[in-house]
Amino acid sequence: MRRVLCTGGTGFVGKPVLERLAGRFGEVHASTSRPLRDRDDGPVRWHRANLLDDGDVDRLIDDVRPTHLLHLAWFAEPGAFWRAPENLDWLASGARLIRRFADAGGERAVFAGTCAEYDWRFGWCSEGTTPCAPRTLYGASKNALRSVVEAHRATARYSAAWARLFFMYGPAEPEAKVVAATIRALLQSREARCSPGSQMRDFLHVHDVADALVAILDSPIEGAINIASGKPVSVAEVVGEAARQIGRPDLLRLGALPTSADEPPLIAADIRRLVHEVGFVPRHSLQSGLEQAIAWWRQRGAESPC
Amino acid sequence: MRRVLCTGGTGFVGKPVLERLAGRFGEVHASTSRPLRDRDDGPVRWHRANLLDDGDVDRLIDDVRPTHLLHLAWFAEPGAFWRAPENLDWLASGARLIRRFADAGGERAVFAGTCAEYDWRFGWCSEGTTPCAPRTLYGASKNALRSVVEAHRATARYSAAWARLFFMYGPAEPEAKVVAATIRALLQSREARCSPGSQMRDFLHVHDVADALVAILDSPIEGAINIASGKPVSVAEVVGEAARQIGRPDLLRLGALPTSADEPPLIAADIRRLVHEVGFVPRHSLQSGLEQAIAWWRQRGAESPC
Repeated sequence: MRRVLCTGGTGFVGKPVLERLAGRFGEVHASTSRPLRDRDDGPVRWHRANLLDDGDVDRLIDDVRPTHLLHLAWFAEPGAFWRAPENLDWLASGARLIRRFADAGGERAVFAGTCAEYDWRFGWCSEGTTPCAPRTLYGASKNALRSVVEAHRATARYSAAWARLFFMYGPAEPEAKVVAATIRALLQSREARCSPGSQMRDFLHVHDVADALVAILDSPIEGAINIASGKPVSVAEVVGEAARQIGRPDLLRLGALPTSADEPPLIAADIRRLVHEVGFVPRHSLQSGLEQAIAWWRQRGAESPC
Repeated sequence: MRRVLCTGGTGFVGKPVLERLAGRFGEVHASTSRPLRDRDDGPVRWHRANLLDDGDVDRLIDDVRPTHLLHLAWFAEPGAFWRAPENLDWLASGARLIRRFADAGGERAVFAGTCAEYDWRFGWCSEGTTPCAPRTLYGASKNALRSVVEAHRATARYSAAWARLFFMYGPAEPEAKVVAATIRALLQSREARCSPGSQMRDFLHVHDVADALVAILDSPIEGAINIASGKPVSVAEVVGEAARQIGRPDLLRLGALPTSADEPPLIAADIRRLVHEVGFVPRHSLQSGLEQAIAWWRQRGAESPC
């Protein structure tokens, strides 16, 4: 029977991933560093483990003996995560985790990578072509883990894919991120102050990201694979569409904030591996995805400022 | 006052490094995972610490509060180290160590890297030009640590150099390595069976390597820097010179072993950074270095097989 262990299961990506794993894998185990009493059981078996503690990693793998691993946990504090020294701890944790997983007979592992591994000067991010040259500690640490996982699996018996996530939005997005911040401000009839927003990015609804991760875990695909829409849009288009749907384009202040000097004009994802090798088709367009996200924030009472 | 912490101080490179640090830094501290009773004190202060244990790393840094770090420790079992999963543990340990060093106010760090970080298909290994594309877990793990140290020091206050070691020989070389194995066999009047030895490599006497490491630690140089002779020679020349000096060229069996199919024909080091920025001049030629090494093995009684 397949036993999947998902780390980071309480996070923005982890929550919808867990909902999808439950129907597809025999046993679904998830780890969290928070007290377990907050967790209702349902089909997911929760384990309390601090992945930055070597002993906890060892115990978690011993307890679950996972055949499949979906490693999403990382330091993710908005803004701070790019340069935080915690990235070094999560690199160390990931190296520990994959070694223990392999030693315990694990068969298949998928990791959350990032578009920040690519050299963004190229604009186009294609797994087999674009060089990796991360310019942040976050990107460097993810890329470092990827490179050792690739070398390790060549000496061990598990298969592994490295899923590079691009820009995401959707329910429970951290409120400091641009899409969530804009939706909340407009729902509260506040000004939404943005950069001019001319930079082109690839946005995908987090439910589509979760579908893709689960499909990749359930496939034999190896190596780096982008998870994205394949349709870069300007940030101005994204927040403009949100403002139009909410009915408050008058409150959108494009250009109220400067564009930072090192902001790349284009970050576009090649999704041919995802489409042709995984057979993945996103359920959401940008329009339907934003409708869903706005409905979620409304339902959560985002109109009333807290 | 400068307090240097040297890891791996009981190893092939670490021993001569410690001898050189003692005269040059105010306090010299060394760590070892072995019992301390074997260590005579001298000018070096020894600390027992298992660097694969997070708690030990934290305690070591707290106890020493090093201003300078020379990190040599790694998994080094001849032959096995290329593919051993222990490389993942040493990557995790290195990430932990540098984070703690920086948090504790460390100023200057030098790491032992490896020529195996380079893409060997290029032959020529030049820090600023040759791509890094390690093809072993050892090279990938060292390269991963290098890349996160580079990104981390851009966000922290210490300076760091990454010293890439090439091929070494000299006193106390592990006996399974080609130069040591050849010398010992010939001193014992046994056949020395080698590959044809046409591959060109850069060899440097370990005392010169130690001099270079200490000079780099005592400099402000940043980033990757090769430590090598700059004079590639064929392996056949090296073992041939050893056989000539010992007086037993008749026992040298070049071609008795096959050359492995993935053995690169040339691994040559660019040493311009080492020469021009550090001002390093090796004391040993290949000839004088082999004389010294052979004398050491003789003194150690290598003529009588153990």
